[in-house]
Amino acid sequence: MAGRRVSLLLSAFEINGPNLTSQGLWAHPEQDTVRYTDLDHWLDLARTLEEGGFDLLFLADSPGYPVLGGTTPDVTFEQAVEMPTNDPLLLVPAMAAVTRRLGFAVTASTTFEGPYSNARRFATLDHLTRGRIGWNVVTTSSAVVSDLHGTAPLPAHDIRYDVADEHLELSYRLLEGGWEDGAVVGDKQARRYADPRRVHEVHHDGRWFSSHGYFKVEPSPQRTPVLFQAGASERGREFAATHAEVVFVQGRDAAGVRRQVQDVHARAERHGRPRGSVRTLAGLTVVLGRDRAHARDRLERYLSWVHDDAARAYFASMTGVDLRALDQRADLGTVSTEGGRTQVERYRGETVARATADFLRFGMREFVLTGSVTEVADDVERLVEETGVDGFNVTPFLVPGSYVEFCAELVPELRRRGLVDQPRAREESLTLREVIFGAGRTRLPADHPAARFRRSSREAG
Amino acid sequence: MAGRRVSLLLSAFEINGPNLTSQGLWAHPEQDTVRYTDLDHWLDLARTLEEGGFDLLFLADSPGYPVLGGTTPDVTFEQAVEMPTNDPLLLVPAMAAVTRRLGFAVTASTTFEGPYSNARRFATLDHLTRGRIGWNVVTTSSAVVSDLHGTAPLPAHDIRYDVADEHLELSYRLLEGGWEDGAVVGDKQARRYADPRRVHEVHHDGRWFSSHGYFKVEPSPQRTPVLFQAGASERGREFAATHAEVVFVQGRDAAGVRRQVQDVHARAERHGRPRGSVRTLAGLTVVLGRDRAHARDRLERYLSWVHDDAARAYFASMTGVDLRALDQRADLGTVSTEGGRTQVERYRGETVARATADFLRFGMREFVLTGSVTEVADDVERLVEETGVDGFNVTPFLVPGSYVEFCAELVPELRRRGLVDQPRAREESLTLREVIFGAGRTRLPADHPAARFRRSSREAG
Repeated sequence: MAGRRVSLLLSAFEINGPNLTSQGLWAHPEQDTVRYTDLDHWLDLARTLEEGGFDLLFLADSPGYPVLGGTTPDVTFEQAVEMPTNDPLLLVPAMAAVTRRLGFAVTASTTFEGPYSNARRFATLDHLTRGRIGWNVVTTSSAVVSDLHGTAPLPAHDIRYDVADEHLELSYRLLEGGWEDGAVVGDKQARRYADPRRVHEVHHDGRWFSSHGYFKVEPSPQRTPVLFQAGASERGREFAATHAEVVFVQGRDAAGVRRQVQDVHARAERHGRPRGSVRTLAGLTVVLGRDRAHARDRLERYLSWVHDDAARAYFASMTGVDLRALDQRADLGTVSTEGGRTQVERYRGETVARATADFLRFGMREFVLTGSVTEVADDVERLVEETGVDGFNVTPFLVPGSYVEFCAELVPELRRRGLVDQPRAREESLTLREVIFGAGRTRLPADHPAARFRRSSREAG
Repeated sequence: MAGRRVSLLLSAFEINGPNLTSQGLWAHPEQDTVRYTDLDHWLDLARTLEEGGFDLLFLADSPGYPVLGGTTPDVTFEQAVEMPTNDPLLLVPAMAAVTRRLGFAVTASTTFEGPYSNARRFATLDHLTRGRIGWNVVTTSSAVVSDLHGTAPLPAHDIRYDVADEHLELSYRLLEGGWEDGAVVGDKQARRYADPRRVHEVHHDGRWFSSHGYFKVEPSPQRTPVLFQAGASERGREFAATHAEVVFVQGRDAAGVRRQVQDVHARAERHGRPRGSVRTLAGLTVVLGRDRAHARDRLERYLSWVHDDAARAYFASMTGVDLRALDQRADLGTVSTEGGRTQVERYRGETVARATADFLRFGMREFVLTGSVTEVADDVERLVEETGVDGFNVTPFLVPGSYVEFCAELVPELRRRGLVDQPRAREESLTLREVIFGAGRTRLPADHPAARFRRSSREAG
């Protein structure tokens, strides 16, 4: 596929809490996610990922929690279903301190984070990481979160995306338009820190946000963090096609994923962004073994740790749908949900009974590959061919076990096949945007909507 | 003074930007603050402070910038007057990763940070630092900041404190009342993460804030971060007496500082908090030399780097007062300022001309001591005797130079005199609250207003 990245992007999928997507796995004897409050857990993980060949660590956030029929079931607390979950952004500076190459993509909500504070935080992180930060832009579909923040009711689905569009517009004004390149002189001898003619007041009076004044953060390497997005609805896809640089595609069916990948690229082109402007990542779980049978046996043993009621509560939290309250023969993809949530769309054409059985095994996992190193490498190669994705968001069962296995066994094989880059020297410093789009492309390109908010002193003069 | 801490608390005063309180010092050849965007700068500093005997690093924030007569003067950018300044909170995780004992007190505004997000961030940091986090509660007096956040007009001074009272009440509900002690079982064998009966929904419907639901963060070592405050107005002092555990006193006159220290303790007692509930810190700048004359000469050389117009712009930013626009013979302490800012109160009884001359030298510095190590140690001893303060917020000219000098020369002498604790073993892990109030006191005491928001399962039924 034209414009596809030559070597696969490898992203690790994490959350700042005890469970990721398999509710109950926190209790596995080899599971270290229960150490999520311990900084050393994250420092070790960051080192493991960087040394093992990962390009970035993706931090989801789970700001809400399950509510079924107006109450939160006990299983939420007993099995740590999205509860507790700590702030993800604060993990990054510590992990940045012990790595040189690993990127970080962190989830922050346009519905609940003010654009000014959010831009200041990401710009600060872009400085501290030397350009290794990305922002996973989410609009947050859980009404629980608006109750917690005291901003109920949650805006309707499409409105949330309108808000997100304006949030990003203001973010671009601040991050791209506040300071020109070269505005910081930093000349101690001339006693001149910055050139006032090249710092510009931002003025934004929108429907949802306003901001007036100078952005407090001097230009960081990437300015706008690399923009990640996972919108699956029509409105969400349009949003991603407009803004996103990396899009998460969903599902476990190669043909369906291929259609999504093509849709992402076609939409981006319609928004004036050339081929290659957007990278796609699919979720990938790998369980290795001596052979398929052994690997499948290992997979089944992991799956046996999923707690069914916890998984149902998790499904309800993400979708607003109580699987037990539905006709088991109905098409789950056609169920209408409060807040217009779209997570159920992936189950279009599936009965509630079948979708439930699937979710109780795999949660939100996408592709699950089992086999020997050679077999899984073959599968990866075929998947890439069939889907056109640019890389994978690797979703573990065990932390750090699943990553250790992936790095020690699969990555060397993928490297042998030229599917994954050879290790970069620790000294070779690239920004996250360069890792994703190639050396030299640290900033958003001129055809990205952020570019029109850049300002030059000529125009200001 | 009864209840005073036996050994002095040593805090280092920093900001995430090129200038602290001496505008222009960024350009000094030995000044490293220009490396403020570089994580290594902060890691090195944290190690220097911990090894050198400091108890904590205090991070101010400067979310606004100078505006005089409706515009921001060029000197703001040329001399980096509160511009740029990055987010302070994001420095903490990285510095926590390379230290074991150093505490961190970070400024966050009750006017601009939502209580739920703020509580989640500080609780996350309390986990990651293992109980070494403090919160410097500010209400933000700069209208520039409300313009940036799109929430203009800035509420009036006393209203901001009412908002702050409610912000803290909600913070206590979340941090102290959301989860009982022992709510997290973490029993893998029993497959039981938390006890649902010991996690409680928070319900708050106040005048300015509301929040409904479960707090997402499990109990951290200290729960509520150690509360720092610097309110100088009548309303600010009442706020501090109600909530604060560490109060910054202001001024450069020992008798005046003594009155403030006594006022802090008397007010706290009136609020039902026994002697010893609040520690006081005074600002302290130290310049050492072979003798007084040599040290004073070094001091004058530092002061010669202050840029006069930059200092005036800085004064305007903090107070709303343009020193040049005033009658030079007027009493600066009686000038009324927009927004009811109170920074000028410290100049009560001083003419504008004299106050200006002082500010152009010392900015917001408090005590400035010059002399040989023995002389300065004598002065420190006398200051403590005269004022009753529990410690000092050490305000450098050069980073890290001023701290290196302080740690290498003065701290050993203060230790010899029993004024400062002997170094703790790196293994001896204390929370910040224990460092300040003594081993075993990791949580807020029962007589603090936060305590009434704690909940027990008995009460919950």
